[in-house]
Amino acid sequence: MNISPLQKARYEYSPKLPGMLRNGIAEICVCEGAETQSVADQDKIKALFPNTYGKKEITFQKGANTSVAKKQIVGVILSGGQAPGGHNVICGLYDALKATNPENELFGFKGGPSGLIDDDYIVFDDAYIDAYRNTGGFDIIGSGRTKLETQEQFAIVADVCKKHGITAIVIIGGDDSNTNAGVLAEYMAANNTGVQVIGCPKTIDGDLKNEDIECSFGFDTATKTYAELIGNIERDANSAKKYWHFIKVMGRSASHVALECALKTQPNICLVSEEVAAKKMSLSAIADYIADSVETRGNNGMNFGVAIIPEGVVEFVPEFSVLIHEINELLAGSKADAFNALPTWADKYAFIEAGLTKESMAVFAILPQSIQQQLFLERDPHGNVQVSLIESEKLFSALVADKLAARKAAGTYKGKFGALHHFFGYEGRCAFPSNFDADYCYSLGYNAFMLIQYGYNGYLSKVSNLSAPANEWVAGGMPITKMMNIERRHGEDKPVIKKALVELDGAPFKYFEAHREEWAKDTCFTFPGAIQYYGPTEVCDITTVTLALEQAK
Amino acid sequence: MNISPLQKARYEYSPKLPGMLRNGIAEICVCEGAETQSVADQDKIKALFPNTYGKKEITFQKGANTSVAKKQIVGVILSGGQAPGGHNVICGLYDALKATNPENELFGFKGGPSGLIDDDYIVFDDAYIDAYRNTGGFDIIGSGRTKLETQEQFAIVADVCKKHGITAIVIIGGDDSNTNAGVLAEYMAANNTGVQVIGCPKTIDGDLKNEDIECSFGFDTATKTYAELIGNIERDANSAKKYWHFIKVMGRSASHVALECALKTQPNICLVSEEVAAKKMSLSAIADYIADSVETRGNNGMNFGVAIIPEGVVEFVPEFSVLIHEINELLAGSKADAFNALPTWADKYAFIEAGLTKESMAVFAILPQSIQQQLFLERDPHGNVQVSLIESEKLFSALVADKLAARKAAGTYKGKFGALHHFFGYEGRCAFPSNFDADYCYSLGYNAFMLIQYGYNGYLSKVSNLSAPANEWVAGGMPITKMMNIERRHGEDKPVIKKALVELDGAPFKYFEAHREEWAKDTCFTFPGAIQYYGPTEVCDITTVTLALEQAK
Repeated sequence: MNISPLQKARYEYSPKLPGMLRNGIAEICVCEGAETQSVADQDKIKALFPNTYGKKEITFQKGANTSVAKKQIVGVILSGGQAPGGHNVICGLYDALKATNPENELFGFKGGPSGLIDDDYIVFDDAYIDAYRNTGGFDIIGSGRTKLETQEQFAIVADVCKKHGITAIVIIGGDDSNTNAGVLAEYMAANNTGVQVIGCPKTIDGDLKNEDIECSFGFDTATKTYAELIGNIERDANSAKKYWHFIKVMGRSASHVALECALKTQPNICLVSEEVAAKKMSLSAIADYIADSVETRGNNGMNFGVAIIPEGVVEFVPEFSVLIHEINELLAGSKADAFNALPTWADKYAFIEAGLTKESMAVFAILPQSIQQQLFLERDPHGNVQVSLIESEKLFSALVADKLAARKAAGTYKGKFGALHHFFGYEGRCAFPSNFDADYCYSLGYNAFMLIQYGYNGYLSKVSNLSAPANEWVAGGMPITKMMNIERRHGEDKPVIKKALVELDGAPFKYFEAHREEWAKDTCFTFPGAIQYYGPTEVCDITTVTLALEQAK
Repeated sequence: MNISPLQKARYEYSPKLPGMLRNGIAEICVCEGAETQSVADQDKIKALFPNTYGKKEITFQKGANTSVAKKQIVGVILSGGQAPGGHNVICGLYDALKATNPENELFGFKGGPSGLIDDDYIVFDDAYIDAYRNTGGFDIIGSGRTKLETQEQFAIVADVCKKHGITAIVIIGGDDSNTNAGVLAEYMAANNTGVQVIGCPKTIDGDLKNEDIECSFGFDTATKTYAELIGNIERDANSAKKYWHFIKVMGRSASHVALECALKTQPNICLVSEEVAAKKMSLSAIADYIADSVETRGNNGMNFGVAIIPEGVVEFVPEFSVLIHEINELLAGSKADAFNALPTWADKYAFIEAGLTKESMAVFAILPQSIQQQLFLERDPHGNVQVSLIESEKLFSALVADKLAARKAAGTYKGKFGALHHFFGYEGRCAFPSNFDADYCYSLGYNAFMLIQYGYNGYLSKVSNLSAPANEWVAGGMPITKMMNIERRHGEDKPVIKKALVELDGAPFKYFEAHREEWAKDTCFTFPGAIQYYGPTEVCDITTVTLALEQAK
C-alpha cells in the first residue's frame, strides 16, 4: 500500500477530546440529569419503548470512575453513505475500550448492518486501527445500506452477540440508522439480552440535527471540500468573465449542504429547496429568479456567475413532483413494456403526450430533451423515475437560457449567456476529516464507550457546545427515544427521529436571505481554499458557518 | 469584499526565491553563457529573427549589480486560461521593480492581450498588489484569448508603449503566447523601439516543457487539486464497493495532467492519449482494455474502480478523428441548414447514415445516443464539432458497458457494473497556488524584472533545478528563439515553440507502464488529500511526481 505524505502526517495527529474526558479513564464520572420525554407523540413512543423510554439525559464530568469492571466485547458497524470521520469514531471507541481494560475487544462488522446479520467481522488490533487514524472513507470495515428493522433481524443480531459474548453494539449512521438503533436497543432490553446499543450521528447531508445533535459528523469536511471547489470556480468565473457555472451539490432532500456552501462562498444564486416548497415556486418562477441575476449582471457587463443547486430541489417543485408521480403511473407494470417497444423518441413522445395530464405535459414540454429522456429512460428497479439522477443543474441552465432568449427578444437583456455544469458529491464524502471532524468523531467514539462502560442502552453519543474550542465541548448521552416522533411511512405509523430540513426562520437562512440580493447583483465571491489540517487555528480548526450562526448569542 | 481565513493567512506567506536572488537587488549580477541555436530549423528561425536570434543563455549569481540605472515602466499581461500562481508572477515582478527603484512603475493591461491593444490598464500600487499575494485566479487584471500576432497589432502595442514610456512588456502565457512574445520582441528590436519583451511559462496543461522549461507554472497546483478529488473518489469507491468512476481531467491534447494524477493516486486505469495515438488504438480496443480491468476485478469480487480519461483522448483515436472530419464536411456551409431543418432525430440519423462513409458510420453507430447527438447538435461558430465538449467519460463507460454485456453473455464476466462520471478542470485552474507554485511564480516574476533591468529582450524567464529546494533553484533567462522550430499551421510555415506531449520513453510514462497492470487488477489507490500550505515540508513543499521522475538521476 502506497501511503501519501499527508496520510502519513495525519497518522501523527492527536484528536482533541472534550476537556471533561481528558483526565484519563479513571477520572470520568457520570452526572445524570432529568428524565426525558420524546419531542412529540409521547404516549405512543412510550408504549413502543417500554424499556428504554424516559431515561435520563447524562453528561460526563471529571471525577472518580464508578463504573463496574467487566470485560467488554463491543461490535461496531458503519451504516449508509460515507462521511469523513467515521474511522475516527472507531479509533476513539477502540482507544477508550483498550484504555479501560486491555482485555476488552472491538469487533468490526463488515459491509454495514449486513455484516452483523452475516456474522462477517474482524477483531481490531493496534496495527489495524493505526492504519486508519484521521483518514477519510469507510474502508476500514466498509459500509452498506441494509436496514436493521425487523424482529427476525434483531433475533439474529442477538444470537451473533451471544455467540461472541458481545456486550454492546455501536451503530454509526444517519437518522434511519439511529432510529433503528433505538428500536434494536428496546429489543435487546425487552429480551434481557444484556446487550447495549449506542448510536453515533453521521451524515454529510446535515439533516440529522435537533436540540440534542448540534451537527452530524462529516458535514463540516464535506462542505469544506465542496466550498473549496465552488470558491475555485468562482475565482475562475471572475477571471475569465464569460461563464455562468451551475453547480449541483449533494445533500438529499435538505439544503443544508447548499446553504453552508453559499455562506462560505457567497455565490450569486443559491436555491434552497425548503423555500421553493414553502413558496410553492414553479420551475418557471425559479428560472425567472435566476435569470434576473443573469440579466442584471449581464447588463452591467458581468456575463458570468455561480449558482448553487441543492440535489433535491426538483422534488420540492409542486408541479414537477406531480409530473414525476404521473410518469411513475404511466409506466407502472406492463405499461413500461409497451413504452419501451416504441421504436423512436418521437413515438415515445406521442405516447407521453397522450398519457400525461395537460398540466403535466405543459411542464414536460419545457424541459430540455436530455432531461425528458432521462425521466423516461433511466428508471429504478421498481420502474420509478430516479429523481437523484436528474441533472437539475442542466435543467435550470436550459430553462434560464429560454428565459434570457425571451428577454433578449423583448430588449431588456443585453448580455451573453454561456453555462457550464458541475455536480459535487462523491468528491467530499471520503476526504480526510477536517480537524473538527477528526476531533468530534474521535470524541463521539470515546464517549460512546464511556456510555457502554456505565451501562447505558438506547443512547446516542452526544458531544455538544461544538462552536467552542474542543476543550469546552460537553460529552454525554441522550436517550434516542427523546428525539423521536411518529411519522407516517409507507402507510404505517412509525417512531422515527425527525429529519431536519433547513428552517426558514433559522439564523443560517436568515443571514443568507439578508445578503442574497447583494450577492445576486454584485460579485461578492469568497474563496475558502482547500481544507487545511495545519496552520493558524482560524484556518484549520473552525467548523461551519451554519453552526456559528445557530450558536451565536 | 469578504476575505476567507485562508486568504488572509496566505497574504502573510513569503514566497521563497532561488538562493542566488536572495541577497537583495544590489547583489545580483549576470553570468552570460554560450550563444544559442534554435532546437531545429536553425536557418529559417535565424532568418525570421535577425535581431533576437542566437543570443546567449544567461544565469544570475550573487555579485555586484552592474545594470544601468534608468527608470523602468513595465507592462504586464495575462494571456489564455487561468493557472494558479499568475498573481504571484505579477507580485514578484512588482517587488523587484520597486526594490530596484521606487520610481519604477508597473502597468497591468486588462483582460489579456486585448488590454494592450485597447490601452486598458491600471497602474499597480502596494495596496492593490497586497490584495492578490499568494492567491489563485487571474482576476487581478483578468485574462483573454486574443492573440498578439499581426504586424498591425505590434504597431499598436509599440504606440501604446511609447505613449506611456513603457520600457518592457512581460507576457505571462502558454506556448502560443510565448511564441508571440518572441515575435513581438523581434518587432520591437527591428523597429528600434527600445521596448523589451519577456515571457513567463504558464499552463496547467503541462505541455509547455522542454530542455529549458522544466515545468510550466500552475501544473503543480492544478494536478494537486484534481488528485485530491480523484483520491477522495477512490476512497469512496473502495468504501462503497459498488461503482466504477470515469473521471475526465483537463489538459487539452497532452496527457500530462492525467498521467500526473495517476502517478499520485494509482487508479485502476489511466488512458494516455499519446499511447493511443502511437498504438493506433480504436475505440473498441480502448473499451476492451478498460473492460479487462473491470472483468478481472469483478470476477474477484471488486465491482468498483477508477478510470482517468485525458480530455483530448478521442482526438487521438484514428477512426474517431476521421469521423469528426467527415461530420465537419457533412455539415459544412449550407448543408447544416438542411440538416437542422429535419424534424426528428430519426430523420437526422438517416441523413447522417447517408452522408458518412461506411467505416465512419460503423464508428458512429456504436456511440451512445447522447454522444451522437452532441456531435451533431453542439457545434462551434464555424460549424465544427466541439471536440472538447464531448463527454468522453460517458462515451467510454457506455462502450465498456457494451463490452461487459457481451462478456457476461459469453460467460466470462460475472460481476456487476455501475458507472458514475466526473469532469475536473475549472476546479483547479484558480486554486490558491501551492507553496511550490507560489514560490516558482514569484521567482519567475522577480527574475523577469532582473532580465529587464539587465536589458535582455526576447527572453523567457527561466527558473530551473525545480525538484531541489528553492534555495538551490537556478534563475536566469533563455532566448525564446532557442525553443522554436518551424511547424505547418493553417497551411503556413510558422516559427513556434514546440508543444510537449507525453513522451512514451520518458521516466513518468515508464514508471506508470511498469505499475499499471498491478493497479488495474488490485486496489492500489493512494489518497493525496487536499493541498496543504502549512505543515511538514514533505506534505506542503514537494512538487510533482512527474518532475521527480524526470529529474531522478
